[in-house]
Amino acid sequence: MKKHIVLLPGDGIGSEVTSAAQEVLEALAEEFDHTFTFESKDIGGSAVDKHGTPLPQETTDACRKADAVLLGAVGGPKWDANPPHLRPEKGLLSIRKELNLFANLRPVQGFSTLLHASPLKQEVIENSDLLIVRELTGGLYFGTPSERRNNGTSVVDTLAYERSEMERIVRRAFEAAALRKKHVTSVDKANVLESSRMWREVVEEVKDEYPDVTVEHMLVDAAAMKLITNPAQFDVIVTENMFGDILSDEASVLTGSLGMLPSASMNETGFGLYEPVHGSAPDIAGQAKANPLAAILSAALMLRHTFHMEQEAQRVESAVQEALEQGYHTGDLNVPGGQQVNTQQMTEAVISLLKA
Amino acid sequence: MKKHIVLLPGDGIGSEVTSAAQEVLEALAEEFDHTFTFESKDIGGSAVDKHGTPLPQETTDACRKADAVLLGAVGGPKWDANPPHLRPEKGLLSIRKELNLFANLRPVQGFSTLLHASPLKQEVIENSDLLIVRELTGGLYFGTPSERRNNGTSVVDTLAYERSEMERIVRRAFEAAALRKKHVTSVDKANVLESSRMWREVVEEVKDEYPDVTVEHMLVDAAAMKLITNPAQFDVIVTENMFGDILSDEASVLTGSLGMLPSASMNETGFGLYEPVHGSAPDIAGQAKANPLAAILSAALMLRHTFHMEQEAQRVESAVQEALEQGYHTGDLNVPGGQQVNTQQMTEAVISLLKA
Ligand SMILES: CC(C)[C@H](C(=O)O)[C@@H](O)C(=O)O
Ligand SMILES: CC(C)[C@H](C(=O)O)[C@@H](O)C(=O)O
Repeated sequence: MKKHIVLLPGDGIGSEVTSAAQEVLEALAEEFDHTFTFESKDIGGSAVDKHGTPLPQETTDACRKADAVLLGAVGGPKWDANPPHLRPEKGLLSIRKELNLFANLRPVQGFSTLLHASPLKQEVIENSDLLIVRELTGGLYFGTPSERRNNGTSVVDTLAYERSEMERIVRRAFEAAALRKKHVTSVDKANVLESSRMWREVVEEVKDEYPDVTVEHMLVDAAAMKLITNPAQFDVIVTENMFGDILSDEASVLTGSLGMLPSASMNETGFGLYEPVHGSAPDIAGQAKANPLAAILSAALMLRHTFHMEQEAQRVESAVQEALEQGYHTGDLNVPGGQQVNTQQMTEAVISLLKA
Repeated sequence: MKKHIVLLPGDGIGSEVTSAAQEVLEALAEEFDHTFTFESKDIGGSAVDKHGTPLPQETTDACRKADAVLLGAVGGPKWDANPPHLRPEKGLLSIRKELNLFANLRPVQGFSTLLHASPLKQEVIENSDLLIVRELTGGLYFGTPSERRNNGTSVVDTLAYERSEMERIVRRAFEAAALRKKHVTSVDKANVLESSRMWREVVEEVKDEYPDVTVEHMLVDAAAMKLITNPAQFDVIVTENMFGDILSDEASVLTGSLGMLPSASMNETGFGLYEPVHGSAPDIAGQAKANPLAAILSAALMLRHTFHMEQEAQRVESAVQEALEQGYHTGDLNVPGGQQVNTQQMTEAVISLLKA
């Protein structure tokens, strides 16, 4: 198959990890007789520097024409004092909205060779394998008004949702659960928010379409506790944008392998933007220290969810798994008895295992 | 000194734990020659049952006349299907607003005898001692509009703040930090929310009044991670209402002693409502199994913050500490080699140690 992929390296270590993922995809294409073509575009702080905006029109246009998008990371201290519309994150928020990427999927899964690095006790974290399905284009992130009032003495932000926006993300969660352990935990704050009460109604309606999936409602404060005390109780968690932002970052540190976690942001048609959960790590940028595995695993999600290449996705995931089992690790990971390597060496290890 | 205390037992185990705290306060009054008088009023689900409202006017009136309020817990499955205005939590939300209890203080501190029950590894949790200062009467909890629109096809909630509401809670946090480790972590989502950008400005202004306190801004998603990976880095965390709800519950499970955690909700004048962080635990209500220590420690906070009886507060806290060290524990705690006791026995243990 022929696929055209837009790379959005972004800032900091972004270009190092997207290059690594590109190399892996190229090696895989050769193995499986696919043709993957690549094109790089600017986003984030580097786009502000070059084009005066964190999301140039040509970046959006290129993404629209592509089969899928692979992003590195955005942000850095250089742009922290910029006004809101010139901040790197604004590029990310805008591309999500422009491409209608409403469904953010964040799998959190432990790697047996890395679980020792978890802040949680072994018996608490073992057997956890969860997927957070976060609504990504609504809620407090995009609601209006969002403004100062009364001469700057007060301020409002708006948490707004269409019922249809809730329905489509909740459906996505049930579909994902049907392919997994068949349990959905819907997270809201229905004892306080009207939007959460509507959310709960939508979940109650949609669940009838998935009779073999069980569902549980949980308040966001309780979910923040249970992720820590009993992460293994979860299968799929579905929630609105801001709660999802907080809970998915909370969940990302549980397994001790934040540098390993991929994510997918998808629209209705299966098109998606894939990116590592980790940030742009400006402190180690340009030093070949970055862990490329989250970006490589994001590419695997792309293969699976957008290209429907399940076998290829599994080949990449197994190669990553095996590289870890052989003791290869970048500096962010501590693998007793393993061999510390740089970004390029890690990428080569994955590629050679992929071909094996 | 003479002090009049209103007890709001509420639902579930609420009446068991407030009775326990009352006994402790009575024993303490005798020791220190104070006169504490008590009066019980209804709130929550039991108030709905008796009065048709979760916060009867006479409850509010009694609280206004009291020197302080001690609450048990509200809520339970019996009222879960009630409409919003007849839910137990509405009583809690209304009393906070009625009494202008804008400052919620939640200390999270480990007990050496209980740290083994933490879901976190010993080396991660040890040396953590933090205080969450949560804004309690603004933000998404009380903003209007909060309503369905367009024939129920859409919904909005409103995150609204006055600058003055931000100033007073941020000041409270700096004051608390000045008496502790002199560090404030201000949590917001300034890369997305206008209200968070105003919040950050307010923190930057207020900090000049407290030159010996250091301050750091942290995004809420990063804070949700760091509470788990490095809780000992925090001293005082200050944040708005909804972020505070989530982060304080997240923090409450870190030390493995949720059943031990007290909280204070205070107004401008030092008046306060004190309550355990744990819920109404309907599953064990009426069985004398409830752990009364969080309610007793909430009474200690009342002594300290509203009655300015520091010595008395410390006497209570030491007695609790010692009871644990002697191995006394209720069924929610697992103390190897300790003696499991019921609510009444635990209360008596604390009282006899308090008199010793
Ligand atoms: C950078 C920021 C705006 C973004 C978000 O809050 O969505 C990030 O935290 C994420 O989760 O992808
Ligand atoms: C019961 C609920 C409305 C309340 C809140 O969200 O404030 C509770 O979770 C709390 O933290 O005291």
